[in-house]
Amino acid sequence: MRKHRTKDRLRYQEIADIVTGQIHGNLMPGEKLPSVRRLSRQEKVSVTTVLHAYEILENQGLITSKSGSGYYVRRKPGQNLPEPSVIQPPASPSFVNIDRTVLQILGNIRQKNLISFGAALPSSELLPNHSLNKITAKLSRQKDNALIQYENPFGNFNLKRQLSRYSADWGRHLSPDEFTITAGCTEALSLSLRASVRSGGVVAVESPVYYGILMILAGLGFKALEIPSNPSGGPSISTLEKLFKQKNIDALLLTSNFSNPLGSLISDEDKEKIADLSGRHKIPIIEDDIYGDLYFKGKRPVTIHSFDKKGMVLLCSSFSKSIAPGFRVGYAVPGRFEDEFRKIKFMSTGSTTTMSQLILAEYLSGGGYDRHMQNLRKSFHDQILTGGNLIENYFPEGTRISRPQGGMVLWVELPKDKDSYKLYLRALKENISIVPGYIFSSSKNYKNCFRLSCGFPWTEQNRNALKRLGEIAAERL
Amino acid sequence: MRKHRTKDRLRYQEIADIVTGQIHGNLMPGEKLPSVRRLSRQEKVSVTTVLHAYEILENQGLITSKSGSGYYVRRKPGQNLPEPSVIQPPASPSFVNIDRTVLQILGNIRQKNLISFGAALPSSELLPNHSLNKITAKLSRQKDNALIQYENPFGNFNLKRQLSRYSADWGRHLSPDEFTITAGCTEALSLSLRASVRSGGVVAVESPVYYGILMILAGLGFKALEIPSNPSGGPSISTLEKLFKQKNIDALLLTSNFSNPLGSLISDEDKEKIADLSGRHKIPIIEDDIYGDLYFKGKRPVTIHSFDKKGMVLLCSSFSKSIAPGFRVGYAVPGRFEDEFRKIKFMSTGSTTTMSQLILAEYLSGGGYDRHMQNLRKSFHDQILTGGNLIENYFPEGTRISRPQGGMVLWVELPKDKDSYKLYLRALKENISIVPGYIFSSSKNYKNCFRLSCGFPWTEQNRNALKRLGEIAAERL
Repeated sequence: MRKHRTKDRLRYQEIADIVTGQIHGNLMPGEKLPSVRRLSRQEKVSVTTVLHAYEILENQGLITSKSGSGYYVRRKPGQNLPEPSVIQPPASPSFVNIDRTVLQILGNIRQKNLISFGAALPSSELLPNHSLNKITAKLSRQKDNALIQYENPFGNFNLKRQLSRYSADWGRHLSPDEFTITAGCTEALSLSLRASVRSGGVVAVESPVYYGILMILAGLGFKALEIPSNPSGGPSISTLEKLFKQKNIDALLLTSNFSNPLGSLISDEDKEKIADLSGRHKIPIIEDDIYGDLYFKGKRPVTIHSFDKKGMVLLCSSFSKSIAPGFRVGYAVPGRFEDEFRKIKFMSTGSTTTMSQLILAEYLSGGGYDRHMQNLRKSFHDQILTGGNLIENYFPEGTRISRPQGGMVLWVELPKDKDSYKLYLRALKENISIVPGYIFSSSKNYKNCFRLSCGFPWTEQNRNALKRLGEIAAERL
Repeated sequence: MRKHRTKDRLRYQEIADIVTGQIHGNLMPGEKLPSVRRLSRQEKVSVTTVLHAYEILENQGLITSKSGSGYYVRRKPGQNLPEPSVIQPPASPSFVNIDRTVLQILGNIRQKNLISFGAALPSSELLPNHSLNKITAKLSRQKDNALIQYENPFGNFNLKRQLSRYSADWGRHLSPDEFTITAGCTEALSLSLRASVRSGGVVAVESPVYYGILMILAGLGFKALEIPSNPSGGPSISTLEKLFKQKNIDALLLTSNFSNPLGSLISDEDKEKIADLSGRHKIPIIEDDIYGDLYFKGKRPVTIHSFDKKGMVLLCSSFSKSIAPGFRVGYAVPGRFEDEFRKIKFMSTGSTTTMSQLILAEYLSGGGYDRHMQNLRKSFHDQILTGGNLIENYFPEGTRISRPQGGMVLWVELPKDKDSYKLYLRALKENISIVPGYIFSSSKNYKNCFRLSCGFPWTEQNRNALKRLGEIAAERL
């Protein structure tokens, strides 16, 4: 990229902002932008400055240049590539085997010296660090010893009251006592399975499915049965109907809103159908709603749990994707399995960290949370759109990507002959990390897919890394 | 108790302190104290004031009055009652059943409106609340986002370095990397069992055994085999030798130092024997060392783990009994089971709360921790001695008590015909809570025993409550 003096730097950013405003405003996809010369005259800046501004916008995936013809607003971002294919996984359940390479991959996800497209996490500058620190400082000045003492093993009441307050947005109002606080969503899922599924039982999951869920199933000795899942609408309802009716499964574990890695969103109609199946056939559903608050448009999607009339759906979530991953606070609404759930919670980790709960309760009771979530959703939306455009620009022909309506990850399908584990290994040598597709399946499907996290603002460094990743993907893999 | 004017109140406390100093100093057990009249002349206070001072000391169990003969230094406190009997539990293992009454009892342990002799916890005024709050406030002012981010799933390195620094006191120096941080000792024990024992396996435990351990075994579907255990020296070595040789067990779970509830301390010689048995017969030991730092005299006792040459002992502990229960930070040194342990840790709760780990690491690196522990040990020692004396004064003839050399609980054995569950129920009506003995056994032994926590300073209210408990125990139960 060309070098500019500080003053000029400010100017080209300004020009880029003006054009961005027009693109989000009255300019239509495919429309031609003002010529470089015209914009230079109009804004009284050098041609170089305008060229640089356009270069930035092109890198962000907002505009595209046609040689000899000028610059154009891109078509609706990410709409040019087809969605990933739906795969038919094996029809029989199997125990999950987590091999050493999986653990190595996971070890690399959070390494600090890597440019990480791996971890499905909000970048820390997007989190309300300042507000949380202020509350922490305030609580640490209080005279009582509350911070160091055991909390009620099933959770701080004020925190549960805040959850209750927000629960109406999820489709049905829940009372504080229906919640049990856990050490993150991972514990909520793990305890839900232990509380509701017989040892060694078969658990149906989406395909592809978050490897963390496969690891939980492996650790507890459950069998996994993968259900074909659509990148936009989620798992196949006809397959589910068959499984429930024939009682071929002992439980269903689903991320109903913006699943990881597909980003699929189950429609309200299908959610109701799934809740009915569960109630009618007395087969529990463990619903992971950890991404539900991260919708890009319209209203917060409701849960399967909100349609459940029989207490057969165990709702699980946490604050790790929206407020503070390191707090390790999640929750479950275990319905009719509550007694068993709480017994196992008490036996597994006792109570949950007091301090994290008190800080969260205070944060949620203030006005800052709603504003923070608005900003976070907007950031994720922008980052997902830009990520999609960059993939489209930089990746080999035949690449497909998901078009999630929430969350922070993209699912990328490379041409059939590509091996994403090789891509992972080669990228790692250049300090770039991704998560290869095969670990999202117990049957080792998705060898040509990978997950791309867009949890962070797109810096020049990240953009270049993704460009490089596209170049590697174009090599023989 | 008689009423005194404020000035006089100060004086009688002063007199009591002088006499306490003499008792801890040059006066011998059984020795006669200065007569009331003489002390009154000597210290220039009224006879009433001296009488009141002696009354306080008598209530604290430090002195005893013989009618018509004056006041005497008590014999070595708690040495007048015999130790609890050793019970021969059933020789065959059985699955543990946690019934509803157990959960009700545990629910009552921590209720705030009760005078709780139930929870084996340090009273919060004995904890370094002020220092921890200062560190918390300091960390919350730091610019980086460290507090809210995920920690390494296996623990913060600085915290592990502090543990490494202290480990030499446990009998063998351990490197930081040998530790894995967990959500409290409960998680450390639970993961250790899952990592080293086959599903449904037989786990040998002391008898009586901490009900929390029975609950963990129940939750994970292991069978428990209780081993007769001596109130001073711990489990029978000959029984252990037989079990190991005949491979009748899949693991041994022991609290080697100041077990809960007996307070027994296994000798170094026996610890070495037990470690050898484990290595020779390749049967893992899960060693719970949560009370090891709470020794009353001499040096910190070493662990079984320090004698282990084969990596077969999984050492577990936490900071819940000494620094901050609510932080939920424990640790394990899982030896040859480390890979499996960490895999299950990752699947169960992910990483452990960041903030708790950072605060602890900073606290342990300062000089305050050693001083705090000195004070805490002295408090617990005093409280245990006073507790023993009060039991001796107030409880029916035939009562026996343990004489722990560390920790904070007493094990009380009532005469054979007493039912401690009835005692528990009647005491609860008067807002006093204890833990009845039967929940410390999977075979429902110890019906005439209960555990008395001495984790708090003896206030007048607590003393009166214990007196009342003794009166109820003397009733028909």
